[in-house]
Amino acid sequence: MKFLRQDQQKEFFSERIKQVPRSFIRDILQVAVSPDFISFAGGLPNKKFFPASELKESANRLLGKLSGDVLQYSNSEGYLPLREYISTYYSKKGIDIHPSNILITTGSQQALDLLGKTLINEGDFVILEEPSYLGAIQAFSVFQPTFQCVPLMEDGINTTLFEETLKRTCARLSYLIPNFQNPSGISYSEETRKKVAEIAINNHHFLIEDDPYGEIRFGGNALPNIYTYAPSNTLLLGTFSKTVAPGLRIGWVVAPDEIMEKLIIAKQAADLHTDIFAQQLVYDYLTNNPIDEHLKIIRNAYSIQANAMMDALEKHFPDDISFTRPKGGMFLWATLPKGYSSMELFDLALKKKVAFVPGTPFYIGKTDSNTMRLNFSCTDPDTIFEGIKRLADCIRELQN
Amino acid sequence: MKFLRQDQQKEFFSERIKQVPRSFIRDILQVAVSPDFISFAGGLPNKKFFPASELKESANRLLGKLSGDVLQYSNSEGYLPLREYISTYYSKKGIDIHPSNILITTGSQQALDLLGKTLINEGDFVILEEPSYLGAIQAFSVFQPTFQCVPLMEDGINTTLFEETLKRTCARLSYLIPNFQNPSGISYSEETRKKVAEIAINNHHFLIEDDPYGEIRFGGNALPNIYTYAPSNTLLLGTFSKTVAPGLRIGWVVAPDEIMEKLIIAKQAADLHTDIFAQQLVYDYLTNNPIDEHLKIIRNAYSIQANAMMDALEKHFPDDISFTRPKGGMFLWATLPKGYSSMELFDLALKKKVAFVPGTPFYIGKTDSNTMRLNFSCTDPDTIFEGIKRLADCIRELQN
Repeated sequence: MKFLRQDQQKEFFSERIKQVPRSFIRDILQVAVSPDFISFAGGLPNKKFFPASELKESANRLLGKLSGDVLQYSNSEGYLPLREYISTYYSKKGIDIHPSNILITTGSQQALDLLGKTLINEGDFVILEEPSYLGAIQAFSVFQPTFQCVPLMEDGINTTLFEETLKRTCARLSYLIPNFQNPSGISYSEETRKKVAEIAINNHHFLIEDDPYGEIRFGGNALPNIYTYAPSNTLLLGTFSKTVAPGLRIGWVVAPDEIMEKLIIAKQAADLHTDIFAQQLVYDYLTNNPIDEHLKIIRNAYSIQANAMMDALEKHFPDDISFTRPKGGMFLWATLPKGYSSMELFDLALKKKVAFVPGTPFYIGKTDSNTMRLNFSCTDPDTIFEGIKRLADCIRELQN
Repeated sequence: MKFLRQDQQKEFFSERIKQVPRSFIRDILQVAVSPDFISFAGGLPNKKFFPASELKESANRLLGKLSGDVLQYSNSEGYLPLREYISTYYSKKGIDIHPSNILITTGSQQALDLLGKTLINEGDFVILEEPSYLGAIQAFSVFQPTFQCVPLMEDGINTTLFEETLKRTCARLSYLIPNFQNPSGISYSEETRKKVAEIAINNHHFLIEDDPYGEIRFGGNALPNIYTYAPSNTLLLGTFSKTVAPGLRIGWVVAPDEIMEKLIIAKQAADLHTDIFAQQLVYDYLTNNPIDEHLKIIRNAYSIQANAMMDALEKHFPDDISFTRPKGGMFLWATLPKGYSSMELFDLALKKKVAFVPGTPFYIGKTDSNTMRLNFSCTDPDTIFEGIKRLADCIRELQN
């Protein structure tokens, strides 16, 4: 089907959509599909732990009712009992959030889209961690901001540079993942969380705090969300994608009344509402099953796999390669010595049938980098050892 | 939760979101909920006909499998077997559409958002039917176009004015609902379809042809989609919301390769992908049940109710009120004599416990109108007669 002549294409599309990078990761994932491939490139939770039979019971309960409401159009805000469940979840963590300040979104990816739509004008400065989550870069790019990147340190964002950037640009919005960040696996220390909150409050700055991995902690103690220190300056995102199942696309955003009002308008315009059957399915599952037991199983498996990966890296990787040591989430981040290209390494790795994601797409405007993201959630320890060994061989090849 | 001082609000939100009207209809629906209310205000398919028990069987089949893929992250394009099913559906209608030219969306509302994102720059002219579908006005408003409205006649859009408007403004995009339009119930004649297609082709103009109600025809013969006459100039939208169930939010858009590429990027940024469980649920339902039998039941019920409403209007409404006589869909449209206000009528009607949607929100920039939308899909004939009688009393009150 041919639609536009070459010369028509330039002017046909909106300026906005021309700014959005296509997901490099999706292209990579399509490469690494043959069964003898070992892939650390994915970003998926382990499907072994999806509660399929429990959700089957929930589906039977819901579709056995005669009312039909579970299949009807619904309200844009989201299923109230689910929003109340989330409110109670936060209150157990000591955070007071009213259900009317929670909007259910079609995955937390949609929360990023709605926040971008609602808060970003073309050219507005938006601060990102460096590296940052690709999905957020994509979602915000649609609204044509000017990104400012602030490096991540071992204990979170560099607060000195964060404050400097903020003061220099008058940026009103930052996007942060303080727990087990994607892609780096880095978590903010309590001190960094407090400092970031303080800077935001003092500068009338607003933080988008994305927390998809907070419940997937397998080491250390839980630290408070930044929201706790700066509730009026923080838009807090959550999701059931890592704790229940991502395919159902149920996430949420916590926002103050004034912003919520605009987000609901944006939500109506975007898809009217999130699948009400999926919302009720998740709610029914959560209220009829021991979710804490379920989370223990996931945490335990991911912990074993993360430790296997760190052990393998320690054993097989050359000493001049550093890597993060996450205590939760699904990723760790390795850094080659300066001057080495993880894109080149990627090409070598494909030949040895092992895949990872080069760091490049997680930066703004870089065409190469010496970093790489390694996923540990979907691979068993033996396979992890074998894969890291192959990768170590590729690195030695690259270094020679 | 207080977030912004009054003086901060003005500059806090994006210009874009300030342009989007909040759905007046949602506010109306919240008024008409008590059981003694008769509401013609809704826009819902009749939940009596949702195939809950068949979907329960499908859910059991899908969640009984061990793979977990039905709950995992999935691709942005949508579930391939479902796209193939839609392709086959079109080929039975004599339309040749490859599955790669079909993108599954989170309801067809999302298709409007993605098309707006991809194709509309601020200030671009977009042609709408007058009156037009509120959800489309909302979705497009986010991207700040300049709307141009062309009146609907008995046989569809006024093609003379359509061509004039198009030539005067060089608008590149129109939004049309040729079958049983929401809100008016009007359908385009075959001649109007051909003429619109011809105008689009001759002017390098692109049509968004929204067809949510095409399968809900209960009179007359099916006419070809405009797409048939101008496939390279038409973006065709469809949905399972009126044929299966709206709560699952499964729609689609048909687009040529070049546009599809951009739509997929926009889809990734918007919500990664549509609920894969819901997609597979709809696919499993469609391929294991006689959907044609199911559609016959819906058409038959809506036909009886539409006829009851037309009979009641004929009998009870004053002669100087005209109304459309739809042969499908869920709505008809009544017009009071010039000078009468359907907003005033609405206030009177609420007192008599009957509701409808005043025509006003379906126009751009009007604060009142003499038109009204009446929904017939969810009310049985006796209740329709009673409701129209109440409404007729209100009209007489208004006219005195």
